[in-house]
Amino acid sequence: MKYSDACRQQIEEVLTSIVKNRQPEGLYKPVEYILSIGGKRIRPMLCMLGCALYDKSKVDQCLYPAVGLELFHNFTLLHDDIMDASEMRRNKPTVHIKWDDRTAILSGDAMMILAYQMVTRAPAGNLPKVLELFNRTAIEVCEGQQYDMYFESRMDISGDEYLEMIRLKTAVLLGACLQTGAIIGGASDQASEALYKFGCDAGMAFQLQDDWLDVYGDEEKFGKPIGGDIVINKKTFLLITAYNSLPEAARKELLYWLEKKDFDRQDKIDAVRNLYDDAKVSDTARLLMDQYYSRALEHLEYAGGTDEIRLELKEFAYQMMDRFR
Amino acid sequence: MKYSDACRQQIEEVLTSIVKNRQPEGLYKPVEYILSIGGKRIRPMLCMLGCALYDKSKVDQCLYPAVGLELFHNFTLLHDDIMDASEMRRNKPTVHIKWDDRTAILSGDAMMILAYQMVTRAPAGNLPKVLELFNRTAIEVCEGQQYDMYFESRMDISGDEYLEMIRLKTAVLLGACLQTGAIIGGASDQASEALYKFGCDAGMAFQLQDDWLDVYGDEEKFGKPIGGDIVINKKTFLLITAYNSLPEAARKELLYWLEKKDFDRQDKIDAVRNLYDDAKVSDTARLLMDQYYSRALEHLEYAGGTDEIRLELKEFAYQMMDRFR
Repeated sequence: MKYSDACRQQIEEVLTSIVKNRQPEGLYKPVEYILSIGGKRIRPMLCMLGCALYDKSKVDQCLYPAVGLELFHNFTLLHDDIMDASEMRRNKPTVHIKWDDRTAILSGDAMMILAYQMVTRAPAGNLPKVLELFNRTAIEVCEGQQYDMYFESRMDISGDEYLEMIRLKTAVLLGACLQTGAIIGGASDQASEALYKFGCDAGMAFQLQDDWLDVYGDEEKFGKPIGGDIVINKKTFLLITAYNSLPEAARKELLYWLEKKDFDRQDKIDAVRNLYDDAKVSDTARLLMDQYYSRALEHLEYAGGTDEIRLELKEFAYQMMDRFR
Repeated sequence: MKYSDACRQQIEEVLTSIVKNRQPEGLYKPVEYILSIGGKRIRPMLCMLGCALYDKSKVDQCLYPAVGLELFHNFTLLHDDIMDASEMRRNKPTVHIKWDDRTAILSGDAMMILAYQMVTRAPAGNLPKVLELFNRTAIEVCEGQQYDMYFESRMDISGDEYLEMIRLKTAVLLGACLQTGAIIGGASDQASEALYKFGCDAGMAFQLQDDWLDVYGDEEKFGKPIGGDIVINKKTFLLITAYNSLPEAARKELLYWLEKKDFDRQDKIDAVRNLYDDAKVSDTARLLMDQYYSRALEHLEYAGGTDEIRLELKEFAYQMMDRFR
């Protein structure tokens, strides 16, 4: 059994115990629900691996902060689903659909506080550093969501703006999970920051891959229908890059598809993919992904720690990237 | 100048500096807005007074946690306004009206994180205790809001349930503000807990008074039209007590007015007030208020500290209660 598998079991146990039978039900049932519909628990696992990389004997001390990071992630899902009016998550109705908006708002609030409650259980000596990182990251995730919402109504988004948005919305939390573990594991500042960068860059590569897979992926491997982002005009790296690099006429055609209200799903996907091909956005995205991926691995080497866990983290990053190979 | 006046000035300065010119605007402008529309800053002031009661030289160290408590309070107002669909606050449009729901949700989230960021600036040695208190209180405030929303659709609420709701929704935060200051001021556990109880009980008395003033208050002194709670069927201590104590026929009349859709505002206020009078709820409420008030003062004596600041806290409680004398 890999080290991370043992961690995952502990995480699941704490997660299910947090709100069990807690009153008032109206506040805690939605929390229980969103935690029960799954998720790979990548973030708490990274936190515990980040600790184990430097000191396995301290991993117990980062179990609660690790769970706190997973709670925070699920809080963002819960509130994002209201803001994005998403009706389904992991094939289940979202909280604001199963209950209502006000219940989803308040349960999300409670979940963020529960997250803080768990993170606060970090060893007292590490608490200022752990919380400073957590606070900074949490506010960055909100900023990322704000940029994401703002992009919905804009077309003049540069590639850099998009990358900054996904860095804030997705990547920094992965970095923070690893660094939290590293801090509790007693890593030096340089090492824990290198591990943070490993997580951030791997997260960037992963998110770019997600955009890429939606268009160029293998439907079975990807796990959802191809072209979903194209159908809903999601501002992905591919769309933004194509829009910014296509010549005038092709850009107009792209806009035509973005504005068209009645269309055949497959027609739109095919037409937009053709424009993406003209703009060679697949190559651009893959090149960038590879850059982030190799940079992530460089940071990982620099982070030091034990070979056993570093190998596991390397494998983890490799598996994340393997979906499109 | 009273000690609290100097505190208030410092609080205002930090509050206005927190989100000034911060990007993205869409996230921080609503925060700036809700902080700018006023409020008496009672909570941060209580925090600083709670510290000064034991050690004036440490009050600087609780300025940021004090501001964090005010941010948290304003975060709850922002999200409560969405949940309660309130359109106005302090004579200004609420955030979700001036912007929209999703903006109000996300700005509220950011505000809670900013609150934690400020509270985290408590001296490292006090941090575990301060945060444990803050976490517990924050989750209690959410529980209180959940009970309050739940009560909207129920009539079978006991007086005790109502008191527990206002304790959670309003009183505990006042207690926590004082105790946070006391902890940073170096008070003993017994003293800081006594101060917490002073704040809680004063808060209970204050909230009961607020219910009472809506019906029996002097319009000019109260600052808003009399009978507002009656018109919207707000579940106040008076309504719940009357409903639970009136004989069958009178209770039916009360229900008649609660269910009536078309009515003359003054007719409803007069009719319901007559029923309140029959049930003698004014006496019941005033008796309970006085009990909480005297208990609060007992706790304050027990909390010790310097005479100067204890007197100021006593005066503060007296002024809060003076509105109905």
